[in-house]
Amino acid sequence: MMFLLLLTLCGPLTQISAQYDPTWDSLDSRPLPDWYDKAKVGIFIHWGVYSVPSFGSEWFWFRWQGDNTEEYVKFMKQNYAPTFTYQDFAKEFTAEFFDPEEWVNLFVKSGAKYVVLTSKHHEGYTLWPSEYSHNWNADDVGSHRDLVGDLANAVRQTNLHFGLYHSLFEWFDPLYNEDKSNKFTTSKFVDTKLIPEMKELVNTYQPEILWSDGDGEALDAYWKSTEFLAWLYNESPVKETVITNDRWGYNVGCKHGGFFTCADRYNPGHLLPHKWENCMTIDKVSWGYRRNAVASDIFSIHELIVTLAETISCGGNILINVGPTKEGTIIPVFQERLLQLGHWLSINGEAIYESNAWSVQNDYFTSGVWYTVKEPIVYAIVLNWPHDNLLNIGSANSLFSTNGTQVVIIGNENSPLSWQFDRIVSIVFPDKATVFSEWAWVLKITPETK
Amino acid sequence: MMFLLLLTLCGPLTQISAQYDPTWDSLDSRPLPDWYDKAKVGIFIHWGVYSVPSFGSEWFWFRWQGDNTEEYVKFMKQNYAPTFTYQDFAKEFTAEFFDPEEWVNLFVKSGAKYVVLTSKHHEGYTLWPSEYSHNWNADDVGSHRDLVGDLANAVRQTNLHFGLYHSLFEWFDPLYNEDKSNKFTTSKFVDTKLIPEMKELVNTYQPEILWSDGDGEALDAYWKSTEFLAWLYNESPVKETVITNDRWGYNVGCKHGGFFTCADRYNPGHLLPHKWENCMTIDKVSWGYRRNAVASDIFSIHELIVTLAETISCGGNILINVGPTKEGTIIPVFQERLLQLGHWLSINGEAIYESNAWSVQNDYFTSGVWYTVKEPIVYAIVLNWPHDNLLNIGSANSLFSTNGTQVVIIGNENSPLSWQFDRIVSIVFPDKATVFSEWAWVLKITPETK
Amino acid sequence: MMFLLLLTLCGPLTQISAQYDPTWDSLDSRPLPDWYDKAKVGIFIHWGVYSVPSFGSEWFWFRWQGDNTEEYVKFMKQNYAPTFTYQDFAKEFTAEFFDPEEWVNLFVKSGAKYVVLTSKHHEGYTLWPSEYSHNWNADDVGSHRDLVGDLANAVRQTNLHFGLYHSLFEWFDPLYNEDKSNKFTTSKFVDTKLIPEMKELVNTYQPEILWSDGDGEALDAYWKSTEFLAWLYNESPVKETVITNDRWGYNVGCKHGGFFTCADRYNPGHLLPHKWENCMTIDKVSWGYRRNAVASDIFSIHELIVTLAETISCGGNILINVGPTKEGTIIPVFQERLLQLGHWLSINGEAIYESNAWSVQNDYFTSGVWYTVKEPIVYAIVLNWPHDNLLNIGSANSLFSTNGTQVVIIGNENSPLSWQFDRIVSIVFPDKATVFSEWAWVLKITPETK
Amino acid sequence: MMFLLLLTLCGPLTQISAQYDPTWDSLDSRPLPDWYDKAKVGIFIHWGVYSVPSFGSEWFWFRWQGDNTEEYVKFMKQNYAPTFTYQDFAKEFTAEFFDPEEWVNLFVKSGAKYVVLTSKHHEGYTLWPSEYSHNWNADDVGSHRDLVGDLANAVRQTNLHFGLYHSLFEWFDPLYNEDKSNKFTTSKFVDTKLIPEMKELVNTYQPEILWSDGDGEALDAYWKSTEFLAWLYNESPVKETVITNDRWGYNVGCKHGGFFTCADRYNPGHLLPHKWENCMTIDKVSWGYRRNAVASDIFSIHELIVTLAETISCGGNILINVGPTKEGTIIPVFQERLLQLGHWLSINGEAIYESNAWSVQNDYFTSGVWYTVKEPIVYAIVLNWPHDNLLNIGSANSLFSTNGTQVVIIGNENSPLSWQFDRIVSIVFPDKATVFSEWAWVLKITPETK
Repeated sequence: MMFLLLLTLCGPLTQISAQYDPTWDSLDSRPLPDWYDKAKVGIFIHWGVYSVPSFGSEWFWFRWQGDNTEEYVKFMKQNYAPTFTYQDFAKEFTAEFFDPEEWVNLFVKSGAKYVVLTSKHHEGYTLWPSEYSHNWNADDVGSHRDLVGDLANAVRQTNLHFGLYHSLFEWFDPLYNEDKSNKFTTSKFVDTKLIPEMKELVNTYQPEILWSDGDGEALDAYWKSTEFLAWLYNESPVKETVITNDRWGYNVGCKHGGFFTCADRYNPGHLLPHKWENCMTIDKVSWGYRRNAVASDIFSIHELIVTLAETISCGGNILINVGPTKEGTIIPVFQERLLQLGHWLSINGEAIYESNAWSVQNDYFTSGVWYTVKEPIVYAIVLNWPHDNLLNIGSANSLFSTNGTQVVIIGNENSPLSWQFDRIVSIVFPDKATVFSEWAWVLKITPETK
Repeated sequence: MMFLLLLTLCGPLTQISAQYDPTWDSLDSRPLPDWYDKAKVGIFIHWGVYSVPSFGSEWFWFRWQGDNTEEYVKFMKQNYAPTFTYQDFAKEFTAEFFDPEEWVNLFVKSGAKYVVLTSKHHEGYTLWPSEYSHNWNADDVGSHRDLVGDLANAVRQTNLHFGLYHSLFEWFDPLYNEDKSNKFTTSKFVDTKLIPEMKELVNTYQPEILWSDGDGEALDAYWKSTEFLAWLYNESPVKETVITNDRWGYNVGCKHGGFFTCADRYNPGHLLPHKWENCMTIDKVSWGYRRNAVASDIFSIHELIVTLAETISCGGNILINVGPTKEGTIIPVFQERLLQLGHWLSINGEAIYESNAWSVQNDYFTSGVWYTVKEPIVYAIVLNWPHDNLLNIGSANSLFSTNGTQVVIIGNENSPLSWQFDRIVSIVFPDKATVFSEWAWVLKITPETK
Repeated sequence: MMFLLLLTLCGPLTQISAQYDPTWDSLDSRPLPDWYDKAKVGIFIHWGVYSVPSFGSEWFWFRWQGDNTEEYVKFMKQNYAPTFTYQDFAKEFTAEFFDPEEWVNLFVKSGAKYVVLTSKHHEGYTLWPSEYSHNWNADDVGSHRDLVGDLANAVRQTNLHFGLYHSLFEWFDPLYNEDKSNKFTTSKFVDTKLIPEMKELVNTYQPEILWSDGDGEALDAYWKSTEFLAWLYNESPVKETVITNDRWGYNVGCKHGGFFTCADRYNPGHLLPHKWENCMTIDKVSWGYRRNAVASDIFSIHELIVTLAETISCGGNILINVGPTKEGTIIPVFQERLLQLGHWLSINGEAIYESNAWSVQNDYFTSGVWYTVKEPIVYAIVLNWPHDNLLNIGSANSLFSTNGTQVVIIGNENSPLSWQFDRIVSIVFPDKATVFSEWAWVLKITPETK
Repeated sequence: MMFLLLLTLCGPLTQISAQYDPTWDSLDSRPLPDWYDKAKVGIFIHWGVYSVPSFGSEWFWFRWQGDNTEEYVKFMKQNYAPTFTYQDFAKEFTAEFFDPEEWVNLFVKSGAKYVVLTSKHHEGYTLWPSEYSHNWNADDVGSHRDLVGDLANAVRQTNLHFGLYHSLFEWFDPLYNEDKSNKFTTSKFVDTKLIPEMKELVNTYQPEILWSDGDGEALDAYWKSTEFLAWLYNESPVKETVITNDRWGYNVGCKHGGFFTCADRYNPGHLLPHKWENCMTIDKVSWGYRRNAVASDIFSIHELIVTLAETISCGGNILINVGPTKEGTIIPVFQERLLQLGHWLSINGEAIYESNAWSVQNDYFTSGVWYTVKEPIVYAIVLNWPHDNLLNIGSANSLFSTNGTQVVIIGNENSPLSWQFDRIVSIVFPDKATVFSEWAWVLKITPETK
């Protein structure tokens, strides 16, 4: 049963390099490239002109001038000239401290296996010198650098995989808004801007992930998603390796495409029949950098590991977002979280990377215990130190049917734990002062080999 | 003979409202709308992001970053951060003092009959909120106004005709440069940007002149000029009234199209077989505003009237350029010249407006005397007060064959001048203190009616 | 009688280098250095942080934040952030085009004999790096140059005399305002800022004119004016050469000090018993540069010569103001006026420089005729060309008592004019076309030597 | 012996409100107000124009333009125009997110008992609207607020004490540099700027600490320190309550004044015969905010507690510095450290506040154990969890001479620890999982009452 399940996760045994039709049936038949499910942990980077006001969220422009949210309108009125527009912020997107090798070094230390950068968010500003966004890209206005290219090069010096986020729609693009006011019966935006731009992006930077977003106002037919994906899978330079997600039209999300993202911070708490990803943020409030974030807005390392455990146990990948500053730094508190995570993964990573969802996701008897598996070994991630050093678990009885089952805390492998089985399993934890891992502990449960 | 000549100037007697093929033969057969030749004097306005650095000329961007002219490179190095780009200037294109009614009021007082505004120069920045120049137009960055629309509305409160300059090429447009590097065998720029943009411009602002420029790097075939002009003449909302010039491909200038402009500051000094225009600048050095212009760079009123006389006498129109400031003012010295010109034309306009080129353009015996005609009256524009108050002219003998020919100085019509004819004609000028006109004087020569 | 009058103008025959007490009696006894009365024409330069907004007038700061004049408040609200303050303008006072030699070259060509620069206006910002205005001077904020020193050096390459304007009070200086709120019974500002600053200024730049202003809120006793002037006349490095004016306390103006200025644009129209100066502006509205000045705000060359004639004839000097731009240029229309004035003075200067007031200032019979004298020659400045070329004057009969009196128009000295005397004098002007001077004409009247 | 020692720390039993002479003998006789030694923990805030470039350190101006440190020169060259000066940064010191109540709330939670703000650093820019720093203070340029006043008001809503840092010298003050070039034989700066400014500061904000700095280039005689302190102790509004430090001349530090600071980050590791303070920084590298700080530059909470323990045990106070941003925020990683510290102090504060140095400072047998005392209770701060849960200490034998001595870990008072005495004392620690405190643990040792 478990075997079947895993097959489902990985898609049918089609060859990646088949020829695909521009239909979801055909496109959905393409298996996900292998590396993705194994990687488990990625870094998401939201960086753009919104990193300049760095107020509220990356939706700054729309909040200010789209739906006129009071807080944003007031902020602008109090601090800027009436004649100031969003585009004026771009000049300050200077990235003078941006050292892509330092970033990548941090990401490697965090234990992440892939990186996804916002090549273009809903504001339309491209972080690469796009032919199709003249005067509204990072090379023309702001840092005067190819930020996508610079990061891509640094990532490729390492074992990290490189992905690019890309927004289909743009809040204030006049061509898009003309199509929209025509109820999407015209496709000026898609034909002259969107498709050429995406092809340019793929051809130039050859991302292993194309993380689509901003699809929610129109059907896939408007976006010409299936045609584009057929090109991507059949003809593009990354046809063998690329992975996409599911944000390709408001009728598509959580139904078609590559891995499913469904919603931001999607964390269903149970197993899904399709590979999925939980994209979430260390700043609980925003994807983009906020200058006025306070300590309580930031995920603690414990909260982060909790989310990681829940996600991986349910078959998801986790994509952890940090919003860099306009000057190109990742602020110390984000660095610290990623380093703490990396420290934890350096001990406990074997329960995460290349693991699979087990038949049970979380323990029914004691909450805060989540399972993964690498047959025949099962891992129990224990998020809270058990009271009186005694952990009672109820969902893993099958593993303890013989006395030969061995249990250790990862990091302390030389000290097998004693356990008892009486309707539930009770495992005796050691003196905490002797335990190597912090914040959460992984039990490695090795059933007796028959 | 003169009659035939005038026919040539105005084109064959086709109806404007005919249907035109996208061939030069057909397009060239369209007569120029009547008003244009009668108007004679227009105002040209070069206004754009170059009005912000306002240094060197409107070619600032290209001089700095295209051909790296030392003076410009040095200026930027001395006064700006290394990270500053041309696009950053756009924020300062604020136009806070731009009052279109004041401008138009000045133009009316100058005696001009039409106005031509640079809707987009080679920098690509559009003075109107073009769909095809998102984030690089006056509404998105800078003044946050529709400068084309604002001026059009003000002009239309008066009897002035409204025209728009538009550059085909853009120095740094990536699509254009891709086409160019393909030796113009591709037409991405023309198809997705140029033609839609020009149609948008014509449809929205319905200009009576579409003053094309920036054609010189490619053939008309690349620009799809004949197709566009066929649309303009057959289908556009201004098909009955619009006039264009001849800058539609490097094989086209001075050969096809509407009025000929041939070269900047074109002033051939002799009659042409086709209607033409002399576009020239009050600042001798630049079309765009220069902050560091000095008094000697500015045409004196006498120089301006000299150029006017030469141009009109040779069958041309004169398009007099002023470069407004980034804040939207026309500097006092330009105002003063235009008001002086208006003062002169308010006296002497009858020799200019609706006049025709005479059989002779300038006098062979005394230089600085130029002729125009309104049958049967001939006007001699005398650019320098004659020595000893006695003007000798050699090219107008035919008019003085009978004694009944009357000569007056315009403005002093009540005091006919005495003259003598002895191989040349000698006309006695009055005491200068009694003469109303300044700077140049027009003799109105009325031959005896037979 | 005339002789006595001139004595009065020049003060009693004291030696300049005497020792002076800090009393007006003593200070007033110092004769004006000789050169000043002879020079007649000076250039006044108002340049400061107000040249950046260049809106309204050089009183911008006070209008905006002192008395909250609506026009200024609105301008700031519409174009600047609420957090913007006047001090923020200083950054933009860049002077990148300031070439002192070009300025001085222009001033020389204008015919002026001295130059007075605002070293510090009421805003307190010093154009030199004053020890007493740290962080609020041209070297620290803005151009990062010693603008006073740069101009002084250039002026001293020529025959021009160099003067400095200096404001006693400062609108927003906290020490000054503390003294003021103490009804000037304290003198913190004067002791720790004003007097040290003025001494620094004098010691460093050794001006030949110290043009004081901003005295009007307090008595000379508060300003310690007499003590300062005693130092200036007795000890300073310019004790032999310096000239001051009369703005040294609200009880002082038009009564004590060097030359009298009385009020801005002071032009009494009659002779004064004390040497005086008419400081006036080419821009009728403002001393500081205004970006939105229009042509009608600018003195015509004729108006300027009228004012010059009136002033010199009444024993005054004229100090003609231009307001340079923040970038350090003098705009073309100002250049043009000064060059026109220079042209006029190059012909007619002998009636101006080193001239004296005559017994009569202007003609009683024909208005617009003003007299100067260099014994025994009398000059009549004729501001309007006489009707029918016949000038009738009524105030100069004494000069025409013998037939030997010679009259010429300056510039046409070889053509003596015929005249008749019959209760009034009638002078026959030549054909205007033969006359060299423009705008105004000077009759040089040489009585027969007995 | 201990009693005598404490007397020394607090100074002789003079009354604070005595009359003091301007001599060190007399001034040093003034006892420190009581609250200071009890408070132990303060927050130091370095905030100024250097918070804008926020690069390198708060010595930015001097590094760039004083000693031309290459890194700073290069930073400016790469990112700013050649004409940019340090003063231009002030405009960006906007403090738009500065909420003094939020800051104070954080400081209260951190367990600190006093706050010291840089009212003026060596740059001379005052955070209050000083009369003596016109146009170079926070009200005139930048935030346009009285930052000192705003923070003072918020602090006074709580039990925190309010102190002000003030720099005597200014790198680039021209008056100071004139005095300096006169080898401090003149005192223009001290007389007209420094003393009036300090009196204004004290009179206006009535600080309980006046934290002097920047004294190192001159003797106390130049600064007129003793005169000023006599005024402060005899006449100022805070004469009863104010405390100062020892930075009042290069011959004074670590010898005279209030508490001794000796050097930055002074942490001698042994007891001093005079009350002292360890001022240190959470960012190990800089007092001012640095935008490009990385996680490894930041003190961990363990390092911070180590420093706290060492300092308090040796009789010092600790003044923990954070550098806020130009927008007025304290970045999350600083917030987190302060909150962690507050959490630790909320458990262990009784060993810190109002404690005294014990006869021994740190244990000779086991390093990382530091003592404080509140007679008769002795506290041992254990910085590392003991191996095998057994702590051996060698310096506290005297306390364990009878069996009645009780030992508990603070936070776990209900569980007395068993101990043994055999030449050294061995204390048995409990299971770590049961212990409430984190990062460091305090043993409360209560000897048997006789």
